[in-house]
This record gives sequence, C-alpha cells and structure tokens, in this order.
Amino acid sequence: MTHPLISQLTLEEKASLVSGASFWTTRSVDRVGIPAATLTDGPHGVRMQAGESDHLGLNASHPATAFPTAAALGSTWDPELVEEVGQALGAESRALDVDVLLGPGVNIKRSPLCGRNFEYFSEDPLLAGALGTAWVKGVQSQGVGASLKHYAANNQETDRMRVSAEVDERSLREIYFPAFERTVTQAQPATVMCSYNKINGTYASQNHWLLTDVLRGDWGFTGYVVSDWGAVVDPVAAVAAGLDLEMPSSGDRGPAAIVAAVKAGTLDETLLDQAAERVVSVHERLRAARGEQAPKSVAELTDAHHALARRTAAAGSVLLKNDGGLLPLDPAEGGRIAVVGEFARTPRYQGAGSSHINPTKLDDALSAIRATTTRAVSFEPGFTFDGSNEEALREAAVKAASEADVVVAFLGLPDAEESEGFDRSHLDLAPVQTRLLTALLAANQRVVVVLSNGAVVSADGITDAAAVLEMWLGGQASGLAAADILFGAAEPEGRLAETLPLRLADTPAFVNWPGSDRKVVYGERVYVGYRWYDTIGRDVAFPFGFGLGYTTFEFSDVAVTVADPKVAAAVVEVTVTNTGDRAGAEVVQVYVADPVAGVDRPAHELRAFSKVRLAAGESRRVRLELDERAFAYWAPTGWLAEPGEYLIEVGASSRDIRHTTSITLDLPAVVPVLDEQSTYGEFSQHPQGAKVLEGFVTGLGAAGAMFSDPAMTAMIDDIPMRNVISFGGVSDVEGTLAVLLKDAAQG
Amino acid sequence: MTHPLISQLTLEEKASLVSGASFWTTRSVDRVGIPAATLTDGPHGVRMQAGESDHLGLNASHPATAFPTAAALGSTWDPELVEEVGQALGAESRALDVDVLLGPGVNIKRSPLCGRNFEYFSEDPLLAGALGTAWVKGVQSQGVGASLKHYAANNQETDRMRVSAEVDERSLREIYFPAFERTVTQAQPATVMCSYNKINGTYASQNHWLLTDVLRGDWGFTGYVVSDWGAVVDPVAAVAAGLDLEMPSSGDRGPAAIVAAVKAGTLDETLLDQAAERVVSVHERLRAARGEQAPKSVAELTDAHHALARRTAAAGSVLLKNDGGLLPLDPAEGGRIAVVGEFARTPRYQGAGSSHINPTKLDDALSAIRATTTRAVSFEPGFTFDGSNEEALREAAVKAASEADVVVAFLGLPDAEESEGFDRSHLDLAPVQTRLLTALLAANQRVVVVLSNGAVVSADGITDAAAVLEMWLGGQASGLAAADILFGAAEPEGRLAETLPLRLADTPAFVNWPGSDRKVVYGERVYVGYRWYDTIGRDVAFPFGFGLGYTTFEFSDVAVTVADPKVAAAVVEVTVTNTGDRAGAEVVQVYVADPVAGVDRPAHELRAFSKVRLAAGESRRVRLELDERAFAYWAPTGWLAEPGEYLIEVGASSRDIRHTTSITLDLPAVVPVLDEQSTYGEFSQHPQGAKVLEGFVTGLGAAGAMFSDPAMTAMIDDIPMRNVISFGGVSDVEGTLAVLLKDAAQG
Repeated sequence: MTHPLISQLTLEEKASLVSGASFWTTRSVDRVGIPAATLTDGPHGVRMQAGESDHLGLNASHPATAFPTAAALGSTWDPELVEEVGQALGAESRALDVDVLLGPGVNIKRSPLCGRNFEYFSEDPLLAGALGTAWVKGVQSQGVGASLKHYAANNQETDRMRVSAEVDERSLREIYFPAFERTVTQAQPATVMCSYNKINGTYASQNHWLLTDVLRGDWGFTGYVVSDWGAVVDPVAAVAAGLDLEMPSSGDRGPAAIVAAVKAGTLDETLLDQAAERVVSVHERLRAARGEQAPKSVAELTDAHHALARRTAAAGSVLLKNDGGLLPLDPAEGGRIAVVGEFARTPRYQGAGSSHINPTKLDDALSAIRATTTRAVSFEPGFTFDGSNEEALREAAVKAASEADVVVAFLGLPDAEESEGFDRSHLDLAPVQTRLLTALLAANQRVVVVLSNGAVVSADGITDAAAVLEMWLGGQASGLAAADILFGAAEPEGRLAETLPLRLADTPAFVNWPGSDRKVVYGERVYVGYRWYDTIGRDVAFPFGFGLGYTTFEFSDVAVTVADPKVAAAVVEVTVTNTGDRAGAEVVQVYVADPVAGVDRPAHELRAFSKVRLAAGESRRVRLELDERAFAYWAPTGWLAEPGEYLIEVGASSRDIRHTTSITLDLPAVVPVLDEQSTYGEFSQHPQGAKVLEGFVTGLGAAGAMFSDPAMTAMIDDIPMRNVISFGGVSDVEGTLAVLLKDAAQG
Repeated sequence: MTHPLISQLTLEEKASLVSGASFWTTRSVDRVGIPAATLTDGPHGVRMQAGESDHLGLNASHPATAFPTAAALGSTWDPELVEEVGQALGAESRALDVDVLLGPGVNIKRSPLCGRNFEYFSEDPLLAGALGTAWVKGVQSQGVGASLKHYAANNQETDRMRVSAEVDERSLREIYFPAFERTVTQAQPATVMCSYNKINGTYASQNHWLLTDVLRGDWGFTGYVVSDWGAVVDPVAAVAAGLDLEMPSSGDRGPAAIVAAVKAGTLDETLLDQAAERVVSVHERLRAARGEQAPKSVAELTDAHHALARRTAAAGSVLLKNDGGLLPLDPAEGGRIAVVGEFARTPRYQGAGSSHINPTKLDDALSAIRATTTRAVSFEPGFTFDGSNEEALREAAVKAASEADVVVAFLGLPDAEESEGFDRSHLDLAPVQTRLLTALLAANQRVVVVLSNGAVVSADGITDAAAVLEMWLGGQASGLAAADILFGAAEPEGRLAETLPLRLADTPAFVNWPGSDRKVVYGERVYVGYRWYDTIGRDVAFPFGFGLGYTTFEFSDVAVTVADPKVAAAVVEVTVTNTGDRAGAEVVQVYVADPVAGVDRPAHELRAFSKVRLAAGESRRVRLELDERAFAYWAPTGWLAEPGEYLIEVGASSRDIRHTTSITLDLPAVVPVLDEQSTYGEFSQHPQGAKVLEGFVTGLGAAGAMFSDPAMTAMIDDIPMRNVISFGGVSDVEGTLAVLLKDAAQG
C-alpha cells in the first residue's frame, strides 16, 4: 500500500514533502529520486508566472489561452464541451510544464454578490458537479492533475481567510458538498484544495471531518489535499486532519513544526507518512500518465484553442430577451449599426485575482463586428470605467444612436467592481452606464444590450432594451463570439446557471450576508438559488435554466418509467423537436419534487439535464436517468428517499415546466429510531413500539383513557414518552421508559 | 443572606422543597412551619382546578373571569390597561387562594403558525416586554406572584418538549430575550418559568447559561425558576443549572435523585440550599405582601372584571379596513342588519390548552348587537365549525344578506384549528367560511367582517369586504365589545402587534419552520416580524403597528433632542392632534435606524411608543425617551452603540413613518480587538495597531510595496496579519505576529 520510497525517507525529508518549496513548487528529495512538481493557477487558463511569484495575479505570466470563465462555462450546461476545454487546459499545462492546474471551482453561488462567482459554475450543485467532473476529466486526460476547489463552504470573499461558515450538515450535504462529491467520485481529481474559511468554527485546513471522514471516508478520494495558498494556520493540526500539502512554502516553519510534533509524540508519524506518500504518488502517477512524448507548445496550440474559446463563449452566452426577433442582425443588409460602450473595444473577458491570464490573443467585439458585417458601423465609447467625462461621451453616443438603425450597447462590470478578494455590495451597473442606457433607449427603440460581467447584475433598466445578450466573462475570443451571435453565425446556446433576481433583497442570503464578527450564518439552509425563489414563490427577472435561442423547441411524449417501485430510480424520456427554421440547442431539465415529505424540502430540485443540438425540424428522443439521490434528502442517519409520491417535472427552466408526471415509490417506510427522547407519536409509528405502547396504555387503566380524549389526541404525538409515563402516574419514569425501549428493540 | 429556616432543614427536606407536592402545589415542611404554596395556570384568567388536576385544561376549574388573550392585550399597546388587567387577575388569584399565577407569556411570535401565539403579545420584543412588565406589576400588586414564561426560545408547539432551537446569541439577546430581560429588570416577577425546549442542544431546564449566567447574572433576577409542567428531564442537572422548583410533582423521583447526588458529591449542596431558599423566600414574601385582610370573592369581583374585560377587548381590537366610513353603524337608524356566522352566537373568545378558563359570564355578539340597536337584526349561522350542511346554511345566509342594508359576518378559527399543543400549517380560514364570504360579498356590498382568532389569518378575500374588524380572542365580554365598536360606543383602539403578511411564504421563518429531526434553525436571525418585511422590502397585507380608528390624528412639531452627543440617549417630542370629530386613541411609534452599521441590522426597530387618548380636536405634546439600548446591537463583547448617524422615525406603523430626523452620536469608536486572527484592516483601524503596522510594512522594504498596489488595496483589509507576514517573506510568522500584538497592546 505504502509507496516504497516513503520508508527510505528521514522524518525531516517526509516533513519537507508536505510543505511547498516555493510559491508554485513542491520539494524534491534528490537523494531518493523524488522530483519537485509544479502547481499553478487556473481555472480559465494556465497562469504560469514568468518572473516573481505572487498570490493574486499581480505579476506577469507566460501567455496562455484565456478561456471563458466558469460563469460562462456554467451557462453552457454542456459537460462535453467543458471536457474539451479541460483537455485544452491540460495541453497548455503540459506545454508550460505544469503538474497540477488549480481548478475547477465548484463552490455554489450562494449570493450573486460573491466577488469570485465568475470562477464558479452555478447555484445548483448537480450542474456544478457535472461540469466540474467534465473539467477534471478533460485536464487529467493530458496527464495533468486537477485541483478541485475550494473545499468547502467558501461562498464569499468578505473575511474569506477567517470567517466561519455556520452551516448545518444537511445544507452541506445537499447544497455545498455534492459538486465536490460528484467530481471526486466520478473523476478522481489528483488533488482537492481546501478553502481558507472555517466551517462551524474549524478551519477547513484542519477539519478532520471534512478532509478525512467525508472526503476520503464517504467519497473515497485517493488524491492529495492541498491548502489554498496561505490557508494553513497550524501545520501540525492540518496534517492530523488530513491535509497533505501546505502551499505556498512556509519556509522551514511547517516542516519544523511537524518534525517537532512527531518527536514530541503529539502527531502520529503514520499520518505524516500518508500525507507524504499521497503527494509523491499523485505526482508520480501524473508523470507516468504523461509519458515521454514532448508536448506541443502554447504557440502551436494557440489557434485551435482560440477557436475553442470562441465556440465556448457562444455556447455559454444567454439571450435573455429578443423582442420582435431583433437578433440576429443581418450582416449584409440594413442601416447603420451604432456600437456603443467602452467594453466593445476594451473587453472585460476574465476576472481579476489569481485566475488572471496573460492571453495569447485578444479580440474585441468592435473589431469583430466590423469584420463580420458590411453595414456601416459607428462607435462611441459612451462612458469611461472611472466615470469621467460622462456628459460629453453620453451625448456623442446618443447622437450616434439616433442616427443608427440599431444600437448595440456593451455594458458590464469593470474589474474594479468585481474581483477575487472582495464582494460586491449591490447588483447595479455603474450609474454612468445606466444613465447612458436610459438615454440610448430614448433615442432608439432598437437597442441590443450585450453584458460582460462575472455574476448577475440587476435587470432593472436593462430589460427595457429590445434585446439583451449576457456574455459573462467570455474569455479572450468573446469579442468574436459576440459578433457570431449578433449576426447569427452562432446560436446563443446558454441557459442561466444562476437565477437573475429582481432585487438584491429578494436573494436567499440577503439578511445573512456576509456575516460579521468572523461568522456567517447560512440561515437559508438548503434554500439556495431557485430552491429559494421557487419555494417561497418570489418573482424573478429571469429564472434558473432560462435562455432564448434563434429557434424554438417542443417537448412531447414524456414517459417516466419506474422499473421497480421498490427501487428509488426512474428513467425519463422525452422527444425534443426543433420547431424553428434553423439549427439550435435546447437544455432538457428534469426537476423532482416531493410534495409530502417528512422534512421541509425545496419546491423542486434539478436532478438531470441534457443539452440537445438539433437541426431545423429535427426530433430526438432524449433519455435521462434518475438515481436514488434524485429522490433523497440528507437525514441525520444519511441519505433518505421516503416512500410515496414524487413529481417528475420536465421543463426548459425552473419556471417553465412543460410536463409533470406523478410516480409512486414503494420504498421502505421510515422507521423512527426509538431512544429516551422519543415521543408517543414515534412509538406509535414504530412497528414494535406501537405494540409496546398499546400494552403500556392498557396497563394504565383509567389513567390511560386520557390518551383518547379528542383534545389530547391533537397534541399527544409530540409528547415524549418520558412525560407520557409521568403524566400517566407511573412513579419509576426512568425504569419504565427503559423497559419500553428494551421491549421495542427486542421485538 | 440565607433564609434562617434553611439551615434547620435536613437534606431530604431541602430536596423535597424543590419538587412539587402535586400538580399545583409545593411541599410544606410542617416541622419548621414552611407551608405549601399553590401555583396555577393563567395567563388570561385564573384556572384553579376544582377536581382532578391535569396539564392541558381538560378538567373543570372554578369560575373566573376570562380576560382578553395576550393577542388582544398586545394590540392595545397600553401598559396601563394591561396593568389594570393584571391587578384584576391578582385579585381573583387571591380570591381562589393562589400564590403564583402562571403568566405572562412574553415569547416572540416568530411565525404566525405557532399554535400558542394567542398567549403571546407581539413579534416585537419592546412591546412584549413593556406589556409583560405591566402584567407582572399588576398581578404582583395584589401579593400574588407572576411566572414569566416560557423562558426561552419557545416559539412553536411542534415537538415543543424536545426540539432544540438552534439560534445565535445575537438573535437571543436582541429578539428572544429582551421581553424577559425588561420584565425581570423592571418588575421582578416572583418566578420565571423555563421552557420545555432545548436551546442550542441543552434543555432550558438544565441550561446554566440561560438560568444562571444570563437570568441572574446579567439581569439580576431574585425570584425562583420553576419548570414548565414536565420540563425537567434530569432533576440533578436542573438544580445545578439554576432551576429551583420542579413542577408538577415527580413523586419521590426528583427529591431522591437530588439527595443521592448530594451524598455522592456530584451536586454541590449549596446549590440545593439556594434553590430551596428561593422557593421558601418568594412564597414568604408574597404572603407578607398580602397581609391578613380577607380577599374579595370572585363573585364579588365578577361585574367589575367583566366590564374591564369588555373595555380591554375593545382597546385591543384592530380596525383593519373601513371603506367609506361604513363603521360605526348607526344603532337607531338604517335598514336591516344581517348578522352571519356561527361565531356570532357561539363565540370563540379564548384559546385551547392550559390557559382555558371556566368563565364567570359569557356574552355573545349576536345578543349584544340585538341589545344595542333598535334596527332589525336577522341571524344566520352561515356555516358549522365542522363544515357540515354547508350549502343550505350558505344559501340562507346569502338570502339574509341580500335582504339587508348591511351584513356583519363573524368569521375566525375554531378551537380545532388553533391550540396550545400543535401549530397551524397554513394561515387560511376554513374553506366553508371563505366560500361563504365570497357569496356574501356577491350579495351585498356592505359587508363588515369581524374576526375571532388567536393569530393572524390570511387577508386574502377578507380584504374584499368593506370593513374588517380584528377582535382576536377577546375574552368573555368580547361579544359586548364587538357591539360597542360596531355601533360606535367604543373606539377600535388597537394597533397590530404582529404583521399581517400577504402569504405564508412571505413570513420570515417560512423555510425554517418548524424544523425536523429534533432541531429548528432560526435562520432568519434577528429579522423577525416587521424587521424582516421592512428590511427585505416585502409587501404586507397590513403592517406592524397599523390600525384605523373612527377619528384621525396628525403628528406635528417633531423634535429630537440629544442632550450630550457623547451619550447614547435622545428625547423625542411630538405633538399629536385628534383632527377628527370624536374622541379616539393613537399610538405614537418611534423607530430607530442605523443606516451605516458595522454589522447587518434591521431596516429599523421599534424603540419607544406611547398610546395617547384625545378628545376631538385635542392636542398633546408626547415625550418619548430613547436610552442606549435604542441604538445598540449585541456584539460578541456585549451591547454596542456605534458612533455616527441614526435616523429617528416617528410614525403610526412600521410602514407609515411621518417624520424622520437624523442625529449623530459622538460615541467612542469601536476599537477592534487584536488577536492572532486579526486582519490587516483591523490593525489599521486600531490606534496602536496602525502604528505597529506602519513600522512593520516599512521594515519589509521592497516587499512592503505590494501593500500599496491598487489591485491589492481592495483586498488587503480582509487578509489576516498572519498571512500578511507570511506573504511579506518573513520566516518567523508566529514570533513576528506575537511581537506585533504585544507592541499594539502596550501602546
């Protein structure tokens, strides 16, 4: 089991292996032939720093393809495409001699305010997990390790290095863990990166339950756990909890503390052996998978990857509104096009912080539009990112708009308003942009808004435009993709992976965001994203899963098959037809609802989805499988699918359910666990307990009659047996209770 | 300090004193002249059981006045009137030889679904505390002890004997404790009753922090703590935590366990001494306060108390709608009045469960209406409580309605739908009633709805009526009070003490109610009631503090005076003028908002109020005081009023703010506590820390320059100094941090 080299190492050598050598490299032990390995930032490209290293993307790195951010990847709803992006990222990692690429980020978008949402896929754990799995498979297909991050409950930037996420286990298991769980069980990432924050008071980096019990015990993770950069507080507690590699280097600090703890007997040396072995073995496996063949250089890959970035950006863009079929524009005919907005020539295509890439190319939308159309194209910046010179720029833009047939306004969030490291405090576009938009709308009724932003912005005002195209932070080719969509060369295939709320105050975490005094309470529990809006019936601007295309689709002949009602599983089949006159893509979404449950549950939950690309007029039968987890919730005893009715909803967004099918699962009844706190009702629902209870009540004689008084029956179920015994006049309460429990257990 | 008798008692005698003798009495120690005492249920009347004792109001009790329930008392917003009711309750307790009357209930209405909300005053802790204080003062003025209940976080009936309220300390201190705190500090109730439930995993009955640290330590409680009936699980742990009296009797079980624990050395005998002494002393003080004079009998008190109950019911009734001044009706002139609804002749005037009173009299509204008016009055029951015979009853009612000038429809919740012991699952009136109302509205445009219910019902449909009068559960004279208001002999003086939401899904605890698996998460934290609706900007049917009258009021000349900006206190003065043509009452409400706070805070909070009764045309200058707590929130270090701006809002409901005044308090700046988790930002905000930080950064030389990089400055504040030191390239992180902290502490 143990790697043969580990036993040859000194204590000091082993300790050196579990702490980095530098900002980006692990330590070698040349004596026994253990080489160093290189880990570097992702997840949207390879950030291989050329000179001085730093944590936050401040210093220059080698050129690499800046792919669309996770916000855009999430909206593709397309694991195959994300796997392709992963392969490309893996290839560039090879080119730059990187062993482990730090990504994907599968944290849940708890609030649209989180500054790092652009690095995360979705508010839904199934979607995030499916795409995380694809990303890891893609990267690791190249012999490069992925680092699944940031594990776990790292859902804000405010006080991120210290805040304790106060969150109940059910919410962790149902919302914040499943994307990690799915990616680990289905793709075995080489590494998992623990987050900075605490969970219920314990740093993730030294949380044994998190890193060992759940990650390895429940999910069978076989790689190593690396700390987020600087997340280790106590190096000894970290190793004891299951952390394998501290990054970046803490100099001699970490290793010395570990050596001292082993010598003092406060750290079990076998835990250190395990950590060192995992680090060595993972890197060894990755090297073996890569083989000897020399990789292609980034320069050789650039054109193909730029094209992939372009295609992916289009696939992740979401057409939110398109009144009167304003889009696509005819590239050859029609009047003047007024392009407005600084973002058209100065694209915002990636996020700020550690994921910041030095792109191989950069295409702006203005140039791409001019290259695509033969129509006259004017350009006015309309505003500056710092808000200066507002009136003159706006006036010029309005003039251009009034002289044009159609206006394409590029709006969004500048780097200064959205970044790793801090959260937004509101959802609004800068006033300089909203005032511009109002003026443009007054000047021309045919305005197309194109948005560049890493997380949702307020739809207020924007939805007054005739068409709205959400491009997210679409990577270095996003300008080309925008032109492709505007003129119909590509389909806006994306669907929202996060709800667009009407107002910040409508968002689920609003009153609990971002916490204070080193704590943040996850008071909304499992009601995150559409689970919140749909359960409480709150209107939204655009629902989860929503997106328009240039063609239309119909769902028909929905069939839900339960092979065996005693097994929690079902197959959903639906025929999807492209009823329009051009090719396009639709996302079939299957939600499951449990209308009568033993606990509170969301109104419905996404349990399967499939992206389908169809030619005009084409039909396809789509098959989606639901397994036990599609029906289960997390009970104190583990995953639990209750017997009874479930609703299987097939739709095109969480608010656009086209067909609902009721099925009944004949699963084992939930038998209450009887203990000394159990109630009368729990005894009566327990097969053996009910018999014991009947005997007890009969034995009470006249006193037992109170339990059939109508005024009593409404409240008796919730009364603990301890009190029932006491109210019944029995003097030895403890003894009687013990006998009842023993009899119920023996059956 | 210790009562002289305690030292004369044996261990067994002391143990016997801290556990009841029967359902309603404590034990005597005749040998030394310690008599037994009687405790009995309130809080809306004296439930002195005549024969067999029970917990849940099933068996008959001596006649006593059934006063309006706390739901109605809460809506009076009138501490003086509630104190008068308390005096009457105390007098009847004297008449029935009761030492301690169990009440008031000052739990917060966390959800309108709580089955016991009718026993509680409000969703707001200031209002609940002010009325609880008045109630206790009134009862105790008669030499009868009060029992402030149910301490604490007992906000639901579902699983009430076992559920753990998972609630953060700030929410306890700001929302769930203050009504207890105010009543204890301002009225010193003879006893406090601990609740059944657990708080954060520990039963209230054995929660040392709750019963000793907070109740006695922070608030200076000098009485004894009695268990809710059956709330003691472990009698020894209870005494150790600060519980003084177990009720009802557990036979020999409690005393024997305590004796054994003292003998085994697992329970400190001085804790038992304290508990026994508190029980003996409190009863002794109460007896002394009563003196020797014989009390009046209930029969002698009946008429006066019935009149008080009538006046109080009117004062607590809330006129929600009165289109076109339909009310008051003219008693002498006009066409036929159709009275509809079974509640008109079979009043629901009190709640079910332990508070159930055997009333001295009972006036129904139908008889009262007929006695009040000379107009023709028809009556149709319209529906039955069990829904039977629906169509025939509805048709007859509609016929009567179509033949009448005005319809008065008595609707509400029957006992079976609302009670101690279980919670409601929805807010709706029974369909048999809503269908009747729809039909009545179609038959006659002049419909007055009179509601009898212990907690809010959905306004849906009801608000289609021209007038709506909320009578709550108004006590035995509520029928008279209804007639008084309908015909204008009394003013509907009440104001809502709880928000009437539009939909159940809008309520703050909706997704966290009522919990499962023995836990309920208070995820909405401090955002309870209007604090939720007003912070998230959710529309409501009728806001907190709202109520119409038969006259109108104006607020003018608002003056907010801050005597010393260095002291967190202010005086608000406002002139209230009755601008209508008849006498009436208005409630001046002062809310305080902290627009820029160091933590999330509710949009505004009720901090003072005053009920003012004015003759037509009369004006009065009203003075309201704001103390430090009006500005403070609960920080980990205790109550904290931050320096800066506060908004002082004077209004007639939480949504009807008439005047807003900004004041600035020059309070001490909040100095961060510096510890090994402190951030760069906290060091920089700390007077001494800032100097130390400056020296450190300067000492880093070139590496320190990164801290002034614009991309870094946006995120530096949240980075712990530990990481800053590490990023700065210093190898001895712990040592350096220790030096910085020491230097900052030394100043």
